Amino acid sequence: MAHIDLGNDLPGIRGPMAFSPATAKPLNALAEILLRDDNNTLSRGERELIGAFTSSLNDCFFCQNAHGSLAQHYLQCDMSFIDAVKENYQMTLISDKLKSLLSIAASVQKGGKSVRAEQIEYARSLGATDREIHDTVLIAAAFCMFNRYVDGLGTWAPQDRQFYVNRAPQRAAEGYLDFDPHK
Amino acid sequence: MAHIDLGNDLPGIRGPMAFSPATAKPLNALAEILLRDDNNTLSRGERELIGAFTSSLNDCFFCQNAHGSLAQHYLQCDMSFIDAVKENYQMTLISDKLKSLLSIAASVQKGGKSVRAEQIEYARSLGATDREIHDTVLIAAAFCMFNRYVDGLGTWAPQDRQFYVNRAPQRAAEGYLDFDPHK
Repeated sequence: MAHIDLGNDLPGIRGPMAFSPATAKPLNALAEILLRDDNNTLSRGERELIGAFTSSLNDCFFCQNAHGSLAQHYLQCDMSFIDAVKENYQMTLISDKLKSLLSIAASVQKGGKSVRAEQIEYARSLGATDREIHDTVLIAAAFCMFNRYVDGLGTWAPQDRQFYVNRAPQRAAEGYLDFDPHK
Repeated sequence: MAHIDLGNDLPGIRGPMAFSPATAKPLNALAEILLRDDNNTLSRGERELIGAFTSSLNDCFFCQNAHGSLAQHYLQCDMSFIDAVKENYQMTLISDKLKSLLSIAASVQKGGKSVRAEQIEYARSLGATDREIHDTVLIAAAFCMFNRYVDGLGTWAPQDRQFYVNRAPQRAAEGYLDFDPHK
């Protein structure tokens, strides 16, 4: 049961988005440009992975599974790989550049001031561009918002992780811009 | 010096917003609907105060002064009152309902799961509506994003607090929707 009467029984962020379509609109517009826009040198899979990783640090079950499943879909891996990244990304086969960006995302999750200049320099030395660093910071920051919106209102989340995997192809095809929380 | 080359020397969130207008657009649309929309039983001053309070908990100098100055402008008080709310809101003359909403915002700042059902019940007993509780959670969550965006990129902020007070009337008149970070 959510903390407030959302007027629907939709899971996760879909509940408050259906309750408040006026605020859902810019939230979805932000997700679309950050996570899906084609004019970006980070792939959709990499960006969803940064979001899922941040959500796992915030212990948000709905977001880490919804976006972990999207990352899995785009990266054409299985969920055990996403779980390995969340548990200890340094030990996985993702690129060193992506590891350096996840390190920045982890600092952003703790707080903006936790990001150190040396982390940025290191990411840059591995080929990360200013745009990629900017987007990593904003994706991690945005998920610190989404996660708090979802859990701060006490929304419920399907516990069967296959639910999220099954929905990922449809969610990837439809995108965020015209997201209908009722579907 | 910001962590990345923003291509401008604008302070606070204006730097990254000028660097990345495509993401600035939904961020400003979110701020406009959340903090300024007239169809809301929380006043603009109360909403800016929730944002400034959350920003102070996140220790974001730019945001707590920019939005604290807007709160001060709308509430027609002086900055010492805003400071008193940030330091110990329970001891100020704001309404019990607003105190209960600030308590929820403080929990959201810690993490979504920190919000307890009893806090919601208490706010409701003081007359807070579901809409007001929803907006409080989303405002606090959004400032957890904005604060991390500002500080995670290492932007600079004018240290003279009068700078923010002086700008508040113009910022209040112009709103967020067509925000020009260069002005």
